[in-house]
Amino acid sequence: MAAPGGAGALGSLGRAACVLTGASRGFGRSLALLLAPRLAAGSVLVLVARAQGALEELAAELRGSCPGLRAECVPADLGTAAGLQRVLGAVRDLPGEAGLERLLLVNNAGSLGDISKFFVDFTSPDEVNSYFAFNVTSALCLTSSILKAFGKRPGLHRTVVNISSLCALKPFKSWTLYCTGKASRDMMFQVLALEEPDVRVLNYAPGPLDTDMQEVARTRTGDAELRQFFLDHKESGQLLDCSVSAQKLVTLLLDDTFSSGAHIDFYES
Amino acid sequence: MAAPGGAGALGSLGRAACVLTGASRGFGRSLALLLAPRLAAGSVLVLVARAQGALEELAAELRGSCPGLRAECVPADLGTAAGLQRVLGAVRDLPGEAGLERLLLVNNAGSLGDISKFFVDFTSPDEVNSYFAFNVTSALCLTSSILKAFGKRPGLHRTVVNISSLCALKPFKSWTLYCTGKASRDMMFQVLALEEPDVRVLNYAPGPLDTDMQEVARTRTGDAELRQFFLDHKESGQLLDCSVSAQKLVTLLLDDTFSSGAHIDFYES
Repeated sequence: MAAPGGAGALGSLGRAACVLTGASRGFGRSLALLLAPRLAAGSVLVLVARAQGALEELAAELRGSCPGLRAECVPADLGTAAGLQRVLGAVRDLPGEAGLERLLLVNNAGSLGDISKFFVDFTSPDEVNSYFAFNVTSALCLTSSILKAFGKRPGLHRTVVNISSLCALKPFKSWTLYCTGKASRDMMFQVLALEEPDVRVLNYAPGPLDTDMQEVARTRTGDAELRQFFLDHKESGQLLDCSVSAQKLVTLLLDDTFSSGAHIDFYES
Repeated sequence: MAAPGGAGALGSLGRAACVLTGASRGFGRSLALLLAPRLAAGSVLVLVARAQGALEELAAELRGSCPGLRAECVPADLGTAAGLQRVLGAVRDLPGEAGLERLLLVNNAGSLGDISKFFVDFTSPDEVNSYFAFNVTSALCLTSSILKAFGKRPGLHRTVVNISSLCALKPFKSWTLYCTGKASRDMMFQVLALEEPDVRVLNYAPGPLDTDMQEVARTRTGDAELRQFFLDHKESGQLLDCSVSAQKLVTLLLDDTFSSGAHIDFYES
C-alpha cells in the first residue's frame, strides 16, 4: 500500500493521530524522533510515560523541529487505574477530524519485572498482578479504547503496534514475568488482527537495544549464564542503537506490507 | 522412568501429595476420580474449587473407593487474594513426610472470560485484571509456593501440570482473554521447565471436552462462525468425554516420558 497523504521526500504517514507509550526514553524516544518528521501538518503525537520532565523535553524538541505537529504529553503510570484513565481521557479529547488519514498506536511501555527472581520466587500475587496490570491489561484497554474512539471510516488507516520481544516466543531463565507478559501480548494482538481485518496489527521485536533496560538485564538477571550473555553482548558491541531499530519499524509502517498479526523481529529481512 | 512406589496392577504414582484445582466438575473431577486409585496408601489429594458442596461430594466418593487416601477439600476462589492464601495455607499444612515419593500439582482451574465480547470491547481494566489474577497469577503463585514447600529431595519426584488449550497456540475470534491467558501460562511453565530441570513440567491441552464450559462456548461466543463450529462439534458427537482425556493425562504421568515444558495435545499420539 502506498503511504497516504502529502508524502514528502522522506515518505509520509499522512495526517495522523499517534499515541506512543513509554515515550520518555530508550526505544520510545527514538521512535518519536523518527516518526515526527513523517507526520503531515495537523497531526497529533501523544507521548505517554511516567517521567513528565523527560516527556516535556522531548515534546519541545519535536515542536521545534516539526512546527506543524501538535506534540502532547500525558504523564501517567499505565500500571494504575488512574494513570490508564488519564491516557484514555487524553485520547477522548483528540480531535476526530474528517481530514485524519491515519491512526497509529504504539504500545511500547513495558517493564522487566524482578529478573533477579526465579519462577519459584514469585509467591506474592500482588507483585504478579501489578506486573500484568501494567504490561498486559493497559495495552489491551488502551488499544480497545483508542480503536473505539477512532472507529472504522473510509480513508482512515488504522495501525496498532505491539513492541514485542524474542521473549514472546522463547523462554529465558529468571525472566518469568517478562516472557509471560510478552507471550500474552503477542497472542492478544493476534486475536485483534483476526477480529479486525481493517486494522493493521504488528508485533515488532526490536532486537537487543542499548538501553537502561539492557543495563538492568546484564547486572540483575538472576541466572548467571544469561547475565553473562547480556554482558558479552554489550562488551562485543552487539547491542543495537535504538534509532537503528526504530528506523526499521518506521520503514515497516511506511511499506505496510507486513501480514497483520505477524511477529517481526529486527533481524528479519 | 518407571513408576515409583508399590505399583499395583493399574500402575501407581506412589505415595503422593497431589493438589488439583478446578476439581469440583468437568475435567478436574474426572481427573480426581482417575488419579485416586493410582495413589498409594498414605497419599493426600487436595481438591480445590469454589463449590464446597460438589467438592465434599467428590471427596466422600474418593474416600469410599480409596480408603488409604486422605482427600481434603479446600473451597476457595483462586481469583481472590484470600482464596489463594487459603489454598497456600492448606498446602503449608500438608505433611512433608520422608516417605513421600511424589508431588503432583495440576493447575486445572480456569475461566473463559466474557466470550461474547471482542478485543475492542475490553475497555475495563478491572475486568481484565480479574481475569489474569484468576487464570495466570494464581497458577504462578500456587505453583511457586508448592515447589518451595516441597523442595528438591532425593526420592521425591515433582511434577507440575498446566491444563492448557489449543488457544495457547492459536488465536480465536472473541476469545481474547482465554487465548491470552492460555498463551501466558504455556510460556510461564516453559520458563519453569528451563529453570528447574528437576521438576517435570507438562502443558497438557485436553481437547474439546463435553463440559459446562463447552456449553458456554457454543451459546455465548461472540463470533457467529466460531459459535457454529462449537455447535457442530457438539451435534456431530465430536466432543470428548472428560474421563477419556483425563485418562490420557494419567497415562502421560505414568509413562513420564514427555519432554519437560512441552505442550502436548490430547490428539497427539
